[in-house]
Amino acid sequence: MASDPRITNYIAAGAWALIEPQFSAQGKQVLSTLITFLEDDCMPAEALFHQQLPESGPERWAGIPPVLETLKAKAKTLGLWNLWLSGGEFQHLAGGKGGGLSNLEYAILAEVSAHCTLCPEAMNCSAPDTGNMEVVARFGSPAQKAKYLQPLLDGKIRSAFSMTEYGISSSDASNLKNTTARIEGNKVIVNGHKWWISGAGDPRCSLHVLVAMTDPNNESKHKRHTIFFVDPKLPGVEIVRPMKVFGYDDAPEGHCEVIYKDVVLSLDDVAGGPANIGRGFEMLQARLGPGRLHHCMRAIGVANRALDLMLLRITNPIRKTFGKQLKDHGSVIADVAKSRAEIDMGRMIVLTAAKQIDLHKAKGALKEIGIAKFSVPALVSGIIDRAIQVHGAEGISQDTPLAKMWAGNRTLRFADGPDEVHMAQVGKVEIRDRLPYIQDRQLRVRRAEAKLGVRHHKL
Amino acid sequence: MASDPRITNYIAAGAWALIEPQFSAQGKQVLSTLITFLEDDCMPAEALFHQQLPESGPERWAGIPPVLETLKAKAKTLGLWNLWLSGGEFQHLAGGKGGGLSNLEYAILAEVSAHCTLCPEAMNCSAPDTGNMEVVARFGSPAQKAKYLQPLLDGKIRSAFSMTEYGISSSDASNLKNTTARIEGNKVIVNGHKWWISGAGDPRCSLHVLVAMTDPNNESKHKRHTIFFVDPKLPGVEIVRPMKVFGYDDAPEGHCEVIYKDVVLSLDDVAGGPANIGRGFEMLQARLGPGRLHHCMRAIGVANRALDLMLLRITNPIRKTFGKQLKDHGSVIADVAKSRAEIDMGRMIVLTAAKQIDLHKAKGALKEIGIAKFSVPALVSGIIDRAIQVHGAEGISQDTPLAKMWAGNRTLRFADGPDEVHMAQVGKVEIRDRLPYIQDRQLRVRRAEAKLGVRHHKL
Amino acid sequence: MASDPRITNYIAAGAWALIEPQFSAQGKQVLSTLITFLEDDCMPAEALFHQQLPESGPERWAGIPPVLETLKAKAKTLGLWNLWLSGGEFQHLAGGKGGGLSNLEYAILAEVSAHCTLCPEAMNCSAPDTGNMEVVARFGSPAQKAKYLQPLLDGKIRSAFSMTEYGISSSDASNLKNTTARIEGNKVIVNGHKWWISGAGDPRCSLHVLVAMTDPNNESKHKRHTIFFVDPKLPGVEIVRPMKVFGYDDAPEGHCEVIYKDVVLSLDDVAGGPANIGRGFEMLQARLGPGRLHHCMRAIGVANRALDLMLLRITNPIRKTFGKQLKDHGSVIADVAKSRAEIDMGRMIVLTAAKQIDLHKAKGALKEIGIAKFSVPALVSGIIDRAIQVHGAEGISQDTPLAKMWAGNRTLRFADGPDEVHMAQVGKVEIRDRLPYIQDRQLRVRRAEAKLGVRHHKL
Amino acid sequence: MASDPRITNYIAAGAWALIEPQFSAQGKQVLSTLITFLEDDCMPAEALFHQQLPESGPERWAGIPPVLETLKAKAKTLGLWNLWLSGGEFQHLAGGKGGGLSNLEYAILAEVSAHCTLCPEAMNCSAPDTGNMEVVARFGSPAQKAKYLQPLLDGKIRSAFSMTEYGISSSDASNLKNTTARIEGNKVIVNGHKWWISGAGDPRCSLHVLVAMTDPNNESKHKRHTIFFVDPKLPGVEIVRPMKVFGYDDAPEGHCEVIYKDVVLSLDDVAGGPANIGRGFEMLQARLGPGRLHHCMRAIGVANRALDLMLLRITNPIRKTFGKQLKDHGSVIADVAKSRAEIDMGRMIVLTAAKQIDLHKAKGALKEIGIAKFSVPALVSGIIDRAIQVHGAEGISQDTPLAKMWAGNRTLRFADGPDEVHMAQVGKVEIRDRLPYIQDRQLRVRRAEAKLGVRHHKL
Repeated sequence: MASDPRITNYIAAGAWALIEPQFSAQGKQVLSTLITFLEDDCMPAEALFHQQLPESGPERWAGIPPVLETLKAKAKTLGLWNLWLSGGEFQHLAGGKGGGLSNLEYAILAEVSAHCTLCPEAMNCSAPDTGNMEVVARFGSPAQKAKYLQPLLDGKIRSAFSMTEYGISSSDASNLKNTTARIEGNKVIVNGHKWWISGAGDPRCSLHVLVAMTDPNNESKHKRHTIFFVDPKLPGVEIVRPMKVFGYDDAPEGHCEVIYKDVVLSLDDVAGGPANIGRGFEMLQARLGPGRLHHCMRAIGVANRALDLMLLRITNPIRKTFGKQLKDHGSVIADVAKSRAEIDMGRMIVLTAAKQIDLHKAKGALKEIGIAKFSVPALVSGIIDRAIQVHGAEGISQDTPLAKMWAGNRTLRFADGPDEVHMAQVGKVEIRDRLPYIQDRQLRVRRAEAKLGVRHHKL
Repeated sequence: MASDPRITNYIAAGAWALIEPQFSAQGKQVLSTLITFLEDDCMPAEALFHQQLPESGPERWAGIPPVLETLKAKAKTLGLWNLWLSGGEFQHLAGGKGGGLSNLEYAILAEVSAHCTLCPEAMNCSAPDTGNMEVVARFGSPAQKAKYLQPLLDGKIRSAFSMTEYGISSSDASNLKNTTARIEGNKVIVNGHKWWISGAGDPRCSLHVLVAMTDPNNESKHKRHTIFFVDPKLPGVEIVRPMKVFGYDDAPEGHCEVIYKDVVLSLDDVAGGPANIGRGFEMLQARLGPGRLHHCMRAIGVANRALDLMLLRITNPIRKTFGKQLKDHGSVIADVAKSRAEIDMGRMIVLTAAKQIDLHKAKGALKEIGIAKFSVPALVSGIIDRAIQVHGAEGISQDTPLAKMWAGNRTLRFADGPDEVHMAQVGKVEIRDRLPYIQDRQLRVRRAEAKLGVRHHKL
Repeated sequence: MASDPRITNYIAAGAWALIEPQFSAQGKQVLSTLITFLEDDCMPAEALFHQQLPESGPERWAGIPPVLETLKAKAKTLGLWNLWLSGGEFQHLAGGKGGGLSNLEYAILAEVSAHCTLCPEAMNCSAPDTGNMEVVARFGSPAQKAKYLQPLLDGKIRSAFSMTEYGISSSDASNLKNTTARIEGNKVIVNGHKWWISGAGDPRCSLHVLVAMTDPNNESKHKRHTIFFVDPKLPGVEIVRPMKVFGYDDAPEGHCEVIYKDVVLSLDDVAGGPANIGRGFEMLQARLGPGRLHHCMRAIGVANRALDLMLLRITNPIRKTFGKQLKDHGSVIADVAKSRAEIDMGRMIVLTAAKQIDLHKAKGALKEIGIAKFSVPALVSGIIDRAIQVHGAEGISQDTPLAKMWAGNRTLRFADGPDEVHMAQVGKVEIRDRLPYIQDRQLRVRRAEAKLGVRHHKL
Repeated sequence: MASDPRITNYIAAGAWALIEPQFSAQGKQVLSTLITFLEDDCMPAEALFHQQLPESGPERWAGIPPVLETLKAKAKTLGLWNLWLSGGEFQHLAGGKGGGLSNLEYAILAEVSAHCTLCPEAMNCSAPDTGNMEVVARFGSPAQKAKYLQPLLDGKIRSAFSMTEYGISSSDASNLKNTTARIEGNKVIVNGHKWWISGAGDPRCSLHVLVAMTDPNNESKHKRHTIFFVDPKLPGVEIVRPMKVFGYDDAPEGHCEVIYKDVVLSLDDVAGGPANIGRGFEMLQARLGPGRLHHCMRAIGVANRALDLMLLRITNPIRKTFGKQLKDHGSVIADVAKSRAEIDMGRMIVLTAAKQIDLHKAKGALKEIGIAKFSVPALVSGIIDRAIQVHGAEGISQDTPLAKMWAGNRTLRFADGPDEVHMAQVGKVEIRDRLPYIQDRQLRVRRAEAKLGVRHHKL
């Protein structure tokens, strides 16, 4: 099947040529449909969404701009719904739509969708719901699936992932200790304090996937935590405030500080039931890999959008400085070239990791995911910053999406672990995986040299 | 066909997984053979080569260390000969061996071969011979092919590409003016001055592919030059001196200053015969694309070798500073991770360009080649520099290959045009290729917004 | 006079030692007083200020947190009032307090004051008032001085500088064209549109220093504009909205979009009276130099505060990752060292420029100011970014001042002209100032070499 | 005394203005004389020196180009001899000439002298002699002073500093172990292996300041080593080979591998006599500080020379690319500006450290020296690299001094300890020096906030 010619306006022609052979006919079809949906429906709705969202006050958090539901309905009709299930073990949940695609294909879809902030949610492919749905699907009881999974798959409710705690390096979940769950008979009493709980401010939020300490003294630090499915309408759940990201409150979802005060659950609220008490850490491990890569996929799309805005700006005929259009300044055109190169490099690194997931699941792709995790957001920061610079003051204002894009991308440098942690891990895996071979090769070379009569200078 | 498990010690597992589906059984077979040849024959011979090469004096330039011929004979036997012909229009010249491979496959082979400085020449795949052979094959007369092409294909002689001139931005060949060829009847009298003529110092060098000005007043600056095939034993050809690269003379090949003083050629020495007078610029254009990419392919291999040396060094148990092995210092392990990531990104960019050449020839891959050209050498500089830093003073000395690798790679930032020129070109192509679509999309979005009732703030 | 030992906690000991000999006894005294004021009064008041400022709604822009007036009163008492007048031609206006200091001394004072966001205004040393006061003092009529200068000097009112226009590279004021002033008899009718007018949202703002086009067809583009002193309470002056910097509205001052619709002025509102019509560009030139440097002075203080916060964080004993305090990670301690070095380098560049202003006025210090302008904000961006990174998500939130500091500093890379413009100017001045000498020296060396018998290789 | 107007062609006008008040009349006089000597004598002699030095073979190491002695004689006459003694405790040795200058003044002199590779030695101010002279002056016995110090001060002999060993992180001298001195009665038998012994290849070299292990089992690792003054003509001292820096052998001085085989010394050859056995580490500590800074001083001068060459190149009218002179390309002029800024920042950091030595000796300036040590060579690498890039291939060749300058500067990133070590030390000192004050200030602010009624959000 021939590719939609529009694709190479999103995925650089060179990259597309390299991976097209690995795209199924279905994958190409979905991609083509997505581009139409993005351009005809999502992009024009973006400004409307912000127009429909109250600027401040409690009403800013009370409802969701209606245009979003319109988009969701359309995405369902077009078969662009729940595509994140592609390539994973839960594709059957996709209900025949979107299933059968590979992670490689999904990576491209996710990238393209990120050209518009509304598109990922419109396709029911946005964080933290995707990761949470995976947790419920993998570990939930039938009753939990009925209560939470189906409405999430249908886009009827939203969810929050209630893990990170103040003062804790939460990227290592075994450190968590500010939230405890005390079991008393069939009851579970939760007390605790979380922050940066994305989505908890959303009026539709109907599930907190909560990590709480149940056995603080267990000698294995990997058996001290349990995951609970918590209904945020329960007494004692308090949304304290939204944390801000460089001044943005990210309403209506928010990244909230949340207090759990004597919240009463039952043992049936343990993810998968009481037998799973103490398996929190294990469940979290399964959740993290693909989510990290999803962020990187979308970050590439965001960078490409920034470059698009940069191209429009520097070729705007009314924008001349010192008698020249911006594009005719040597340093500006060099910045375009660098941005193009970095987007293309970043994309290929993401695709490399996605392919590894296709072949070896997330667990077998940790090195490649790690490389993407510390490389892509850093590259994207620079790309958006250059786009900002050619826009002057407009670039940091509310009149372009660039400043908010930059701020959002900045968070990726510590979300799910800071760059430094991922670098250390990748470096160690590199040594573990390759050093034995290199040492052995060196030994063989030395032996062969001896036979050839090579005399090494002796120091 | 299953892949040789050694491959992922050269080509990162993630990258290999992504491109393996595009590798033919033959490609995998050749790659496997190459790895064996590299490790068993080339790598041990490298030190011997330098042992056989006199350290100074005229004898340094008088012969070639015999081990090289041994390697060449072996490479022929193994079918590793003239693989550069792969994927191009001249694969038939490969004589059944190596033909049929794609540029994508060759890119990987070239990268692996660069782990040893001798390997590319041992396989008859080194610059400037490959580019020169292409010129003779494409434009040469039957007599010229017999005289020059066959011996070059057989590795019996070597050649030089006599283009660059002092004081001239030679990356734009239309600027060349220091060498003229005056036609007098059937005779051609050449006078001129060139420098940085790689390979001209080699005692085996038997062909100068010479660019000379034949029609300085032609109104088209693209019709002023002609290519000649010159035998360097002719009277008047003087090899003045080797230019040095950060102190290295790169014997026995050298990058020489050459004077042509009243060298007498015949019209039959015009590339392809007298009808091609004035077609020099056109012929040069065809030569440049793939050669630029070949340098990048090998640069990735060089970077990987630097990383290998870095791994060996930082895990050397006798090397402790402040009580820790180097690998246990946070900044060192981060440098390993960065180097790994950059090699992988650089490789994918090279492969992207190679694939474009497979699909659209070099002419259709200029943007992708340009991106590789300005991105890869810059990344590789940093990677080798980090490897040097962990080696301390040893890293800049003659006791590791790192300093020479760094110096050689530094030349790539202006060979075939400085970074700045390639960035400007890539930036312009990006605007040309994508701006119309982006502008049109913006227009469509604005129209759709109007229908939705979006009110843009009017400034 | 011995220096206050607290100074070296603000100004690195090395830098202080270098410049202390150029500090007068009075300068040291003021600096000491400032440190006490900063620590005892301003820093504790910062959180209170934000507590007193309504979070949203019109009341956010309706008043000023009362603590600011408390600080201003105290600063006056302490002789820390209007210190910006130091070293300039208007020191007599300082009323005996603060006068007599050099720009070098003021640079240090400004840096220290920037450790707290309230301190510069508390000392009546904040933009845009300082620049505006200079304009009124230099060009204003006696009546204008009585109406505007005295209340500004007394801190009774505030002002805005109404220059920048949408769609215009306003760093070159001769480009401005969106605001016109039509003269009809003794009346002047202003119509126009401005944005990024800092301070226009402040309820105390009682003066717009407005740049309007009065003679669009004047053949000299430097005579087309006129400066007017406009009372923002006049009919037709509309504050449309505050522009946001990333997500910050910077209330209660704001960077506002302003529309002037048929605003009626009189000829007496021309800066200095009707004789000055057409002298707008000239007046602007005088205004820009020192202001640019003031921003850099404060940026260094901001960077130092970021480093202080970083030190507190990485030594916080409850913050351990992987069993170590952050300070014990190699890359973190290296980031501290780099930040220290960059702050010290940035400060010395600022002091170099300040000294040049002392010697040659701003006009004679354009190169040094330009170097500071493009170097300091870029360095400071990196320093704050590192401080953010060690804070994790807290670093980008409202719970530390770091994110807002970063956003504010980012604006400096195009405020008063983007980096690229300043680099181009500095590069040109470097060539103009030094090339003749270098060329002459080269000529003399060549002549001397000839006498010595040096034979240069001839190419 | 008015300054020589030529100064600001070497020391940027801004920097000069800042430090001129700290220059004595004598300092200005010497600086003026130096500039004349540099331009009239040294610069023209540089090419002659290389003409007089054989290109290869043993004769390359057999003598010294005679022009050097001519320069030395002239420098003595001009009072430019042994200026390095300025500001230190040994100024009396300067014999009335050069004495009395400060380290700050010497820093400027050293920078200017580095514009020509010959000038530092011509003034008897080059490494390793300066450090070695200091060791002999400080610790030597009267006989040792007579034998070594006086001829060194007179420039009659040269010396080597024999410390670094293969496989040892020699930046921490307590690690040294490959060279031992066995004491037998009055005899001392030295056996050992050193490398990177700068100056040991020089035919004039008449002293090795040798660090050998005398008491390997001493429980204090700082008492295991002893310094000996060794005459390299003694039997058993073998100069094995010069180590190369990139491709440069740095003849006639060389950085040599040296073997000591049963070299017989007497106890009188211990630095200062037998009582000093075991004081080697202590003596080394005293030697390192100022030497590190001297390298940085000269590195700034080298960078300035690179910029001078860059200016000449980009304004060369015959050098046009794409119809423009290089200086008219936006990225080139930006590179000039960046280089100017970085030179100026690097210089001020060096001067800051020099001033600290003036006030607190080297021991009290370790932080400032450390900052210069890791900042300046890194900046200078980038500056020279840019100068190389505008020169194209010529920039890496033997036809400009740029490549050798780059290679020499690269060594500074590990000479006397790698960047990483110095960063770690500076970071730790920063924490030690400033954290207590910052913590105390924070405590005071919190207390004052409480009084003001500030309510901090409790997490």
